[in-house]
Amino acid sequence: MADSAAAAAAAAKPVPLLKDELDIVIPTIRNLDFLEMWRPFFEPYHLIIVQDGDPSKTIRVPEGFDYELYNRNDINKILGPKASCISFKDSACRCFGYMVSKKKYIYTIDDDCFVAKDPSGKMINALQQHIKNLLCPSTPFFFNTLYDPYTEGADFVRGYPFSLREGVPTAVSHGLWLNIPDYDAPTQLVKPLERNQRYVDAVLTIPKGTLFPMCGMNLAFDRELIGPAMYFGLMGDGQPIGRYDDMWAGWCIKVICDHMGLGVKTGLPYIWHSKASNPFVNLRKEYKGIFWQEEIIPFFQSAALPKDCTTVQKCYIELSKQVKDKLGKVDPYFDKLADAMITWIEAWDELNPPAGAAAKVPNGKAK
Amino acid sequence: MADSAAAAAAAAKPVPLLKDELDIVIPTIRNLDFLEMWRPFFEPYHLIIVQDGDPSKTIRVPEGFDYELYNRNDINKILGPKASCISFKDSACRCFGYMVSKKKYIYTIDDDCFVAKDPSGKMINALQQHIKNLLCPSTPFFFNTLYDPYTEGADFVRGYPFSLREGVPTAVSHGLWLNIPDYDAPTQLVKPLERNQRYVDAVLTIPKGTLFPMCGMNLAFDRELIGPAMYFGLMGDGQPIGRYDDMWAGWCIKVICDHMGLGVKTGLPYIWHSKASNPFVNLRKEYKGIFWQEEIIPFFQSAALPKDCTTVQKCYIELSKQVKDKLGKVDPYFDKLADAMITWIEAWDELNPPAGAAAKVPNGKAK
Repeated sequence: MADSAAAAAAAAKPVPLLKDELDIVIPTIRNLDFLEMWRPFFEPYHLIIVQDGDPSKTIRVPEGFDYELYNRNDINKILGPKASCISFKDSACRCFGYMVSKKKYIYTIDDDCFVAKDPSGKMINALQQHIKNLLCPSTPFFFNTLYDPYTEGADFVRGYPFSLREGVPTAVSHGLWLNIPDYDAPTQLVKPLERNQRYVDAVLTIPKGTLFPMCGMNLAFDRELIGPAMYFGLMGDGQPIGRYDDMWAGWCIKVICDHMGLGVKTGLPYIWHSKASNPFVNLRKEYKGIFWQEEIIPFFQSAALPKDCTTVQKCYIELSKQVKDKLGKVDPYFDKLADAMITWIEAWDELNPPAGAAAKVPNGKAK
Repeated sequence: MADSAAAAAAAAKPVPLLKDELDIVIPTIRNLDFLEMWRPFFEPYHLIIVQDGDPSKTIRVPEGFDYELYNRNDINKILGPKASCISFKDSACRCFGYMVSKKKYIYTIDDDCFVAKDPSGKMINALQQHIKNLLCPSTPFFFNTLYDPYTEGADFVRGYPFSLREGVPTAVSHGLWLNIPDYDAPTQLVKPLERNQRYVDAVLTIPKGTLFPMCGMNLAFDRELIGPAMYFGLMGDGQPIGRYDDMWAGWCIKVICDHMGLGVKTGLPYIWHSKASNPFVNLRKEYKGIFWQEEIIPFFQSAALPKDCTTVQKCYIELSKQVKDKLGKVDPYFDKLADAMITWIEAWDELNPPAGAAAKVPNGKAK
């Protein structure tokens, strides 16, 4: 969009690397190609790998990456009894990485997500686009028909109130997936061959009051703004559902962002999702969730947080109480989940004490 | 998206022309190239041209088009004293065309909007995309991250409640503009050279509870579902503002669609907007609106319609009362506008009586 001097200046403005302010969190790496493919983009960053299954299995990380690795034994050692809030044998365990990070930003990605190409054939630096999204404001109070008004070549359109053009801080950047779309098991079964080939060149703010299905495959967020709400729940081993970890976090963060005046963006960047997970296994994991979400969504749609919830922690504790009250009757699982939400906040505050207080230092196998 | 049998079938499904169910409404035609360029797409349809200025000036319509033309004298003759609700010397007069149409669907377009090309270089049949948008449902209650789930190659993503997948009827399809973006005068002045070159290949539902700036340049709607609310207000000759005609309609229709459970889509199709209007003239027309909209937006954001508003007409009358009550104190203009909103509904009902009642037949210069 070199036509406008201002836009040209914006386009020319380099996106900061944020090397010392961002950690990449990955739940296990089964696939060595994964890191090799991302090497040009990920090598400058510190990786936090959270091993989802058997701690005796070794994860091989290629040379040249700076990483720390946590397995179940490490999590138990660091959190003690509070480790009960971290899922086992499920990629939901990744949220432990959010907790032990000391950085301002987190990018989390699955190990079956590769570098996608834009329509011109150029490799997409997903992380760079997430940083762009997180560093520019969101506009949750009014919809801009030309999408993100802060993008080069775009702006607020006629009729957009000037008082809302400053926007609000962006807490979450939700990226998308080319190739294998993020479908539930029933849709996978019905459309086994469907591939997402549509490159939508847009980023947009999800309006205030609107919930969305947040996928954890390609997700970045500002830990300082929303970290304590980015809990991926109880999934996997010993739990009645799976594949709702990121959804649960998405509903919670959206309600809290709306309450706190923070923004959530979705759209660019795309990654290339290489592999569809097994729809039969997925169906087993999902079927209770598919049923329960019909009650969970109205619950979150009507959830209101009182004014004295002035921190994310306070919001989250309040939300856990409402979960217990209102969803406890749907299934005892939600009682357990509500308790785990409290444990999560306690563990978070222990590892991330307010400035001045002494932090418990995690002792994972840092490289 | 030929990968999926279902998607392939959907893609193969021809979009109906709706030749006998759709009118194209154009506010004056100053530019003969306009209709020539659109001939392949518009020739099958009936055109309603509403002349915005001096009735003694002749509008030349090229051979082969089926049209009716209304000038100010015709409007006065047809509506009598109620003609006061139709703007003069302003393209807001186009809404008279919505009123005299007898078709289910309306497409309205400005005469400086030409056929755009998609990224592959193909001429975009804007009307066909609008028909697609209007004929498939909207999803205002929950955001789908892969945009319109009814598009070929797309669907609802994991975590989207199944109970909401039927969607709701679509009342409005808001199309976008390549080249000259629809900016207000201050933005035009600051970014005179900015052009919209970003082709965003998406259609999406504007969520319930979210307002948007509706532009009348490239807009289609279902007259039967929302027609009586598509009033473009009092602009132009003798009025203190201009360029808020479509915005006003957009705020009204959105509040009413949300109340009635109807959907509003935005995104594709693009047209090529050829000419920026004069920013100095625009500033004169807009400046009160820029100020007033800071009060109008919160008004519409908090407007609630009672349950007994079961028709668009009832909703609109109720809204006019709230405008008088709440915006009347901002400026006496809103008193006048609230009265005009009532007059508009009276005129609408006179020309569009319920089935069985006798309609007053408009007698414009039908060709």
